[in-house]
Amino acid sequence: MLCPSSAAIVAPKSEPAAGLAQAVRYWIGVDGGGTHTRLRLWERRAADWVCLGEGQAGPSALGQGVGQAWRQIGEALAAAAVQAGHAVPHWAQCALGLGLSGANDPALAQAFRAADPGCARLALASDALTGVLGAHGGQPGALLIAGTGSVALALHADGRQVAVGGWGWLNGDEGSGAWIGKAVMQHAQRALDHRDPAGPLAQAIWARCGASAEALLAWCAESGQARYASLAPLAFDCAAQDPAAARLLQEAVQQLEAMVAAVDPQASLPLVLSGTVAARLAPQFSAALRARVVVPQGDALDGALRLLQSA
Amino acid sequence: MLCPSSAAIVAPKSEPAAGLAQAVRYWIGVDGGGTHTRLRLWERRAADWVCLGEGQAGPSALGQGVGQAWRQIGEALAAAAVQAGHAVPHWAQCALGLGLSGANDPALAQAFRAADPGCARLALASDALTGVLGAHGGQPGALLIAGTGSVALALHADGRQVAVGGWGWLNGDEGSGAWIGKAVMQHAQRALDHRDPAGPLAQAIWARCGASAEALLAWCAESGQARYASLAPLAFDCAAQDPAAARLLQEAVQQLEAMVAAVDPQASLPLVLSGTVAARLAPQFSAALRARVVVPQGDALDGALRLLQSA
Repeated sequence: MLCPSSAAIVAPKSEPAAGLAQAVRYWIGVDGGGTHTRLRLWERRAADWVCLGEGQAGPSALGQGVGQAWRQIGEALAAAAVQAGHAVPHWAQCALGLGLSGANDPALAQAFRAADPGCARLALASDALTGVLGAHGGQPGALLIAGTGSVALALHADGRQVAVGGWGWLNGDEGSGAWIGKAVMQHAQRALDHRDPAGPLAQAIWARCGASAEALLAWCAESGQARYASLAPLAFDCAAQDPAAARLLQEAVQQLEAMVAAVDPQASLPLVLSGTVAARLAPQFSAALRARVVVPQGDALDGALRLLQSA
Repeated sequence: MLCPSSAAIVAPKSEPAAGLAQAVRYWIGVDGGGTHTRLRLWERRAADWVCLGEGQAGPSALGQGVGQAWRQIGEALAAAAVQAGHAVPHWAQCALGLGLSGANDPALAQAFRAADPGCARLALASDALTGVLGAHGGQPGALLIAGTGSVALALHADGRQVAVGGWGWLNGDEGSGAWIGKAVMQHAQRALDHRDPAGPLAQAIWARCGASAEALLAWCAESGQARYASLAPLAFDCAAQDPAAARLLQEAVQQLEAMVAAVDPQASLPLVLSGTVAARLAPQFSAALRARVVVPQGDALDGALRLLQSA
């Protein structure tokens, strides 16, 4: 968020050890999930952290393999170097702060560290934690992410980090795009069975995915998290005309509010909303929740740099 | 069901053409799903249909490939011949009635027929249809299957066949063992998040699958329909002590009753309950539904023979 639109500066919370600071020329933040890797490349110039460029690559979620994760991070670094007009930095010149999906699994985190190609410094956390660090500039706060998946996090004043949700699209991720997509598909199937009314929402799903059992089953057989999430906008489109769509979005709101309540039972922390589904549902959240919503100070890449600075 | 406990006879609804009856020595019923294939081997002796033996093999659900389906059916036939003390029949001597999962998909059914190894006669339907044919001896009636998956069927007096549910364990199969298993796993995850109370049901799931986020996620990553269904008995075990378990089973009952209502809106047909989950939930069904429950006349293999006779 702070780069490249501003020649951005993130104030370090603590200074690195003098020797290390000499060796490290590049400070890198990484945000890695199941679909994309984003990377931001900073250089320290006197008291300032100057953003040189950004790069993107494919998935670096640790559950898809640590070898792939390091490869994609390398590609994102190369892309950022191209944007910066630099040669690709050697790993030994780089300090990396990484927020990677799956890093909360200790076995995956250990395997990722074991495959370190020789970085000057490594700080690893889940992409959710770097998200909340970025959103509140490292200060206490809560973050609700509802995009393709969903998770809520809080960084409390006493240092506790609490995460709720994020159990994945098959069983969890309530209120997310994939969750809404699965629910509207169920509705379309039940409407075909005459168990649910065949209103505008069911008609819209049939028009998109097929109006027979065979067609819907074939669509489902070929679909994963992202494709289910692509159905979620139909629920928003139909909510004004179809009570089934409106009820479903209301249920999503309740599920997401329950996640926020579980990470911050005192309802005392400032809250950042992130993700397209959270943005579209925001007007339906309770007044009490909306009153705590603040504008994010930065994104997960800023959070990854903070993680590195405080490591 | 009629074999091998009784030297069983299923009265044919119609006689085969005289020429075909000469060529056909063996009459075979097949019930094929995603886990197993069951096959029953009959011989016509004068006016009687004598069951020679039964055989089992691996999955012959058409969605897993028609080549595999024919191989497993062949293996089940060989196993039945061994039980009968016969040589394995040549396909040309055999008339096959098949109730196979996936046969309601026209493309899969066509591919299966195209790979026919040379049977004297072939009659193909979904395993659900052979189930209802067997349950009511070919007469009008309804069938509710709730085991690992769930589906409801009705054969109406005017010949209409209506199926509801059976959309698969990822999005549908409401009230089934896998559906209950997924719901109890969600509850265990939410209890770990402090979104649900951690009562006896959550404790039981944690004891079985792990009491940390990492352990539960690992369990889910390795699990499919059958393994989720293996959690369903915990809901029954805990229902007396844990309101969450009792509510979940009540919701399963409502879902299954809605399926029965959708196949038989007049509530006029006799109903057979099939599957372990239906059996355990039976006492909780409404009195109106229970009043229509009858003892099955036969199983899906008997139904497959009826399908063949009426083809």
